[in-house]
Amino acid sequence: MSKALPKRDENYSEWYNELVKRANLAENSAVRGCMVIKPYGYTIWENMQRALDDMFKETGHTNAYFPLFIPKSYLSREASHVEGFAKECAVVTHYRLKNADDGSGVVVDPTAKLEEELIVRPTSETVIWSTYKNWIQSYRDLPLLINQWANVVRWEMRTRLFLRTAEFLWQEGHTAHATQEEAIEEAEQMLNVYASFAEEWMALPVIKGIKTPNERFAGAVETYCIEALMQDGKALQAGTSHFLGQNFAKAFDVTFQNKEGKLEHVWGTSWGVSTRLMGALIMGHSDDQGLVLPPKLAPIQVVIVPIYKSEEQLKAITEKVKALSKDLRQLGVRVKYDDSDANKPGWKFAEYELQGVPVRLAMGMRDLENGTIEIARRDTRTKETRSTEGLGTYVVELLKEIQTSLFNKALAFREANTHVADNYEEFKEILETKGGFILAHWDGTSETEEKIKEETKATIRCIPLDAQQEEGRCIYSGKPSSRRVLFARAY
Amino acid sequence: MSKALPKRDENYSEWYNELVKRANLAENSAVRGCMVIKPYGYTIWENMQRALDDMFKETGHTNAYFPLFIPKSYLSREASHVEGFAKECAVVTHYRLKNADDGSGVVVDPTAKLEEELIVRPTSETVIWSTYKNWIQSYRDLPLLINQWANVVRWEMRTRLFLRTAEFLWQEGHTAHATQEEAIEEAEQMLNVYASFAEEWMALPVIKGIKTPNERFAGAVETYCIEALMQDGKALQAGTSHFLGQNFAKAFDVTFQNKEGKLEHVWGTSWGVSTRLMGALIMGHSDDQGLVLPPKLAPIQVVIVPIYKSEEQLKAITEKVKALSKDLRQLGVRVKYDDSDANKPGWKFAEYELQGVPVRLAMGMRDLENGTIEIARRDTRTKETRSTEGLGTYVVELLKEIQTSLFNKALAFREANTHVADNYEEFKEILETKGGFILAHWDGTSETEEKIKEETKATIRCIPLDAQQEEGRCIYSGKPSSRRVLFARAY
Repeated sequence: MSKALPKRDENYSEWYNELVKRANLAENSAVRGCMVIKPYGYTIWENMQRALDDMFKETGHTNAYFPLFIPKSYLSREASHVEGFAKECAVVTHYRLKNADDGSGVVVDPTAKLEEELIVRPTSETVIWSTYKNWIQSYRDLPLLINQWANVVRWEMRTRLFLRTAEFLWQEGHTAHATQEEAIEEAEQMLNVYASFAEEWMALPVIKGIKTPNERFAGAVETYCIEALMQDGKALQAGTSHFLGQNFAKAFDVTFQNKEGKLEHVWGTSWGVSTRLMGALIMGHSDDQGLVLPPKLAPIQVVIVPIYKSEEQLKAITEKVKALSKDLRQLGVRVKYDDSDANKPGWKFAEYELQGVPVRLAMGMRDLENGTIEIARRDTRTKETRSTEGLGTYVVELLKEIQTSLFNKALAFREANTHVADNYEEFKEILETKGGFILAHWDGTSETEEKIKEETKATIRCIPLDAQQEEGRCIYSGKPSSRRVLFARAY
Repeated sequence: MSKALPKRDENYSEWYNELVKRANLAENSAVRGCMVIKPYGYTIWENMQRALDDMFKETGHTNAYFPLFIPKSYLSREASHVEGFAKECAVVTHYRLKNADDGSGVVVDPTAKLEEELIVRPTSETVIWSTYKNWIQSYRDLPLLINQWANVVRWEMRTRLFLRTAEFLWQEGHTAHATQEEAIEEAEQMLNVYASFAEEWMALPVIKGIKTPNERFAGAVETYCIEALMQDGKALQAGTSHFLGQNFAKAFDVTFQNKEGKLEHVWGTSWGVSTRLMGALIMGHSDDQGLVLPPKLAPIQVVIVPIYKSEEQLKAITEKVKALSKDLRQLGVRVKYDDSDANKPGWKFAEYELQGVPVRLAMGMRDLENGTIEIARRDTRTKETRSTEGLGTYVVELLKEIQTSLFNKALAFREANTHVADNYEEFKEILETKGGFILAHWDGTSETEEKIKEETKATIRCIPLDAQQEEGRCIYSGKPSSRRVLFARAY
């Protein structure tokens, strides 16, 4: 713990950057745009992975693994896909180095040039559909419900830890179906899985919707998304699920014989969430003291700090704490007892606040004598002293309450920061003065969408799935519109 | 199920290749040397990962993630490391593609050339030690016990599914310590973890030893390894753990202030196992009928097949099977009920044999009436019919017995195929007629080791940790030797 974090309302962006570093979540590496995910940050990601993976398996998916490299020519097979993905990417051109003649190190061996360049996958539709071609012959081979956990690379020019990095970790589901209806159901199901994960695990309320054609995934017929609101009033796309129609099946000639013996092209979906979720988690809940983590994802749910003046006191406290920790662990709670003598309790308190540990217990000699313990909540920063009797059950309930409370707080924030604008002036004023989500009418054209983006930097985050039918006029063109869409400035 | 597998004693190599494909474990992709790990194969890998990851965490390690790309210059920092790793690797030279002028697709944009080429990691010592430099200042920052699960790329010219592929999946542990002694203890501890995993989970006995300088990891002071014997009498290195001394700390200038306030270089280890373990697992136990999986790693531990002539019969059997499956699941058994009507029982039996499911249960109408069920073991291919009473407990015990029995069988095979050779003629004869491990005296020089390799293709797999002190003479040079080393032809 050195100096305090920057304050959110003074410099939100600096606050985020500093928090990511100081809470030991991630840092930039020597390779431009590639991050190192540090152990504490990675443990949160592992907890996310585990929860998501369980949800994928419960919905019938299995994991597999496809190659890191994609032949360059594959990218050109699906016309709109290549436009969206082929441009900024890492290109492997050679497969060997050799010692430099001048002894200065190693250089690329010019004789080891690949006949066809390989692209480090920015996403795997092409390589996967080229494989599915061999796996799918009959309707009996469908549906194919596969997910992979992998690293991908997109050569982003402006990067920010977790939010936008050249290399990032993600999962990408790729499914193949016999009918359009089934593929759409799958895409919608996975959108719901993502929304449940965001709300139940990350404690972040999300808006489910569909993207406008402009914002659609390159190669998709429909892109579903979940959108969350960050504390600075900017939106963050937290996950997408795509109905691919028969686009990739046609590009890679993937057909199947249906029950009637007729050849048809397969219907596809793909869906993914990435380490970007870490950014959403951090920005969704944290405060000027540091990280605030929902208990379900926290690497350490409860930290116990002893307060003592002598070795003898420490020994007495430790004995009691060990019994309490054991109870907590048996109830499935992730507990850490920090009895290191390198730092004082005050330093530890601040450090665990910075790291977002949901519950802190502190025990001193008076507590030991009275059979009590001090319990501090990270989210509300409130403290109470209570009996150690039945502490386990109490803490388990408290963790649940914190989880719910974080969600409710984020929901209340989103509700307070979701505005309705009925004309362009109002729209711009809300954007400048309040930020947040803005529900407004739009004429449905890409031209209008782009103009608004150019003039205000706000984009259409989605057309909410639960949008009400409502006659109105586009805030920009005045043309008729039948429902409001969700605008915001976004990460 | 089409035609039978090739037989092991007719063409071991073809048997392996066909088995990997037909049992749906993996296949070659369109990208040279890169494999697709299919869902069934990947599930076995996931089971391995989970078990290993738990063992790493129990020994105090946490996971993190480091970049895929390594700046070319990093590889030159540790002199022997660059010799071992910098040569055959994937080199990223550009970061953008553009549309070809003739509209034929995309081409590399020559203006988007990287200032310094990036290497797709063949192993991560360099990028990790360059990071550790910033993480380590004081003895209080040590030990640093980190592991990562990742993909790595080594541009192998001759590849074989799982055994040697250009891209493979692995874990790599990288630890930093204040003393030499502690680092050596760590390297030895992880060797023991690998050995326990191989023996307890994979049911494969392994020999623990150290590599000769010739076979040492590029950059290590000492390389520990576990060696397993495959059914064709060839050895397979199943895992390595390296004591790195201060080599990488010196190359990347990683120092710490010790308790006395003096600056010292940090001591390091690294250790890894990869998807190569899949090859060892397959070759260690499988037979001419297909895969044989140890129950602890099998995706499906028990398959239940109904035998029926009418829908009504199926319904009656299914009702009973559902209850039995539920019991088994509650006991933690991974069960599949295959009631699909697409295939006959005989086809299913053969298919699950091919897939190595350890236990197959079959129930027909007579069984249903008698309250019995047929139980078939995959490993011994024996069958028995017994009461469904107490079936759950019986199956749990049977799975344990199969696990032990596979290990014992592999151990007996290894013992029967470990020979002692006292002169070069004997050595060559054993190699040609029997194969297997050969314990022989060696004079300790690289020259002799290389000569023997050139002339016989046998290499020193390791100097076994439990080798007895025994005076003798090198089988090649006749020079004195104080203990036998382990030779074999190897994968």
